Amino acid sequence: MKSTFLSQLAHRSSEPAISWLMRLTLDHPKLISLAAGFTDNDSLPVSQTLRLLEEILGSKKARPASLQYGSTAGDPDLRRLTAHDLALLDGHADPQIYAADRVLITNGSQQLLYLISECLCNPGDIVLVEDPSYFVFFGIAQSHGVQCRGIRMEDDGLDLSHIEKILSILKRKKQLHRVKMLYLVSYLQNPSGVTTSLRKKGEALAILRRYEKDAGHSIFLLEDAAYRELRFYGQDVPSALAIEGFADRVIYAGTYSKPFATGIRVGFGLLPKVLFETVYRIKSNHDFGTSNLLQQIMARALVSGEYEAHLADLHYRYARKAHAMTQALREYFPAEVEWIEPAGGLYVWARLPRSLKSGTKSALFKSALQKNVLYVPGELCYADDRTRPKPNHEMRLSFGGATEKDIREGIARLGRLIEQKL
Amino acid sequence: MKSTFLSQLAHRSSEPAISWLMRLTLDHPKLISLAAGFTDNDSLPVSQTLRLLEEILGSKKARPASLQYGSTAGDPDLRRLTAHDLALLDGHADPQIYAADRVLITNGSQQLLYLISECLCNPGDIVLVEDPSYFVFFGIAQSHGVQCRGIRMEDDGLDLSHIEKILSILKRKKQLHRVKMLYLVSYLQNPSGVTTSLRKKGEALAILRRYEKDAGHSIFLLEDAAYRELRFYGQDVPSALAIEGFADRVIYAGTYSKPFATGIRVGFGLLPKVLFETVYRIKSNHDFGTSNLLQQIMARALVSGEYEAHLADLHYRYARKAHAMTQALREYFPAEVEWIEPAGGLYVWARLPRSLKSGTKSALFKSALQKNVLYVPGELCYADDRTRPKPNHEMRLSFGGATEKDIREGIARLGRLIEQKL
Repeated sequence: MKSTFLSQLAHRSSEPAISWLMRLTLDHPKLISLAAGFTDNDSLPVSQTLRLLEEILGSKKARPASLQYGSTAGDPDLRRLTAHDLALLDGHADPQIYAADRVLITNGSQQLLYLISECLCNPGDIVLVEDPSYFVFFGIAQSHGVQCRGIRMEDDGLDLSHIEKILSILKRKKQLHRVKMLYLVSYLQNPSGVTTSLRKKGEALAILRRYEKDAGHSIFLLEDAAYRELRFYGQDVPSALAIEGFADRVIYAGTYSKPFATGIRVGFGLLPKVLFETVYRIKSNHDFGTSNLLQQIMARALVSGEYEAHLADLHYRYARKAHAMTQALREYFPAEVEWIEPAGGLYVWARLPRSLKSGTKSALFKSALQKNVLYVPGELCYADDRTRPKPNHEMRLSFGGATEKDIREGIARLGRLIEQKL
Repeated sequence: MKSTFLSQLAHRSSEPAISWLMRLTLDHPKLISLAAGFTDNDSLPVSQTLRLLEEILGSKKARPASLQYGSTAGDPDLRRLTAHDLALLDGHADPQIYAADRVLITNGSQQLLYLISECLCNPGDIVLVEDPSYFVFFGIAQSHGVQCRGIRMEDDGLDLSHIEKILSILKRKKQLHRVKMLYLVSYLQNPSGVTTSLRKKGEALAILRRYEKDAGHSIFLLEDAAYRELRFYGQDVPSALAIEGFADRVIYAGTYSKPFATGIRVGFGLLPKVLFETVYRIKSNHDFGTSNLLQQIMARALVSGEYEAHLADLHYRYARKAHAMTQALREYFPAEVEWIEPAGGLYVWARLPRSLKSGTKSALFKSALQKNVLYVPGELCYADDRTRPKPNHEMRLSFGGATEKDIREGIARLGRLIEQKL
């Protein structure tokens, strides 16, 4: 009997790269993993979380709500605080845009990416993504039969001429109706560390709008700001929500998981009004609401100032760990390897000379595993897009999970291997 | 510009009945809600949860794990405990069936229902459901373009001759390939309170198997056991997993939310091996794993005995509240109304004389709202199935959320209205 009981979605859902990487980790117990996007165990707010929980479960007022079902859209306080804090971050207080009733609380921002894909995309549709981008998003796209088109990156984000070029080609081929959104990891990007400038976000929105008439519908910008609050150097940039006249095209995805505790999975979306009701309905079918207890923890963390205080601590720790990694890179990596000093996030993106392959089947990747070091091969961070070859000479190096000692040792081993193979 | 940016799934996702009911609740602040499937606020394990959290966040060993990402399939301890406890409940210890590596932890069992629907069903496929059944499942089915076919119920569950009849009709029409599963709320069913006998589960599985050859693929039984542990009278029944020779066709959906705390959204599936990897991949795309902190709470609740102790308390409370409701029914409802003494769960299913409509547009429903009482109209608990009319003379009455005093008062008001309209 053939397995025709599986749906088309099931047939399209291939093994996520993340599972494969995790299996490698389990198979090599002595591994130094510079691959995992984990946060630092020592940085987790254990005593703070316990204190918040004692307040929540001790206080008469909050007691019942915190262990009871909440509403599908999320806890009203957390929705209000989220809209308010986002307005502060963006320095832009339009109450029509930064409105609690446009905030949907989700199980991490990952769920929002899933919901939005379900809401907008049919099989065969097209999403523009950055080259490189967040590889877990590619899994969502693939399972929904959505084609990704990679947009080249510059130091301040998207290569605008490349968006224009791709859209004009699609227009000529009468394929524009398939384009539903641009997915942008706009802050301290996973994997490259790049932050997209406000100017580029605005121009990208203007370009998308110019093609809407031929597309026959709105084209959205899905701004994934997962790493925004993990900046330890330099200035924050307002989100695309703050760009005059385009807020109805911007879907903002944020999270409290990475900045506070990844074991507390609470993310959110601030959605255009025209999408809110539909995404809400899909969320209702998924789980009719994120765990109320987790939402209460985050609401209280925000109100009490614990969240801000923890962020300051986190910035100090990650700046140190990033520094440990870049120091080791300077010391052990050959001069031919390019990388940028990270200003936040969890990753350093290293470019080897093009002749030296870094992919999952490369000699370098295999030797690194033999030496008990794991990195994310750069090729995994490029969507399947047959219109261009996937670069195969880069690596994502995470300073999130490993200790400073392991970061140093891991980079040293990798450096020696690269040196040998050059 | 038309809203053609929405996907087909989005177009199919209509407003869930649950949202509409919740809005009614908000619009009537003095409402006595006998509609909500909420558990009782006073019954929530506040001090127990705090104690568990103090152990988790205080102990050196558990500290990092509990606030860190976990793995997509779930916490290994919780998966092992779940398989073990289910084997105990079923009185059947086959380690091939009750295996930790077949357990997937989800955000409530609702997420499992969603994942399974995604995994098995294409638009146009058919799922057999009970008449009546859990109305939130219909929302999932609808959004995926799945047709539900209602199976009549008897006092011990499914009318087997009706399954046989529907399948033989579909066979004759060469539509059997569209049938992917039978969705069964097998314990203390929402809404009817019926528990399906073990014999009927076995015979249903045998019937499904007989039609597999013509379907061209396996047909699964999705057994939703959400209310299983909320039994306060009578004997538990083994699940369909315990039926010899059919475990590879049974998807068991369970939850820790309703029996412990609905604010802690942790459910699980025990899946056939042939489905596990695919459902796992889809879960990975959804959120790459349920909140680790919530899983740690449940694992510790199970190991420490807090879970069992809480269940005993819950059974006592709900038996009392069910009794309060049935006493009031005896006192205030006319003798023409039929209902069954509940043995567990959260609901009494009441059948009015067929001439008296109870639906959302009925005079009875509207008068009840005017008198500040809300019930779930029975018609909402029937899937859209054009091959039969929807009964419109029943009501689901929940004794979960309301106080004993409100239950009594709500039933009294309803009884007077029914009396007037008969």
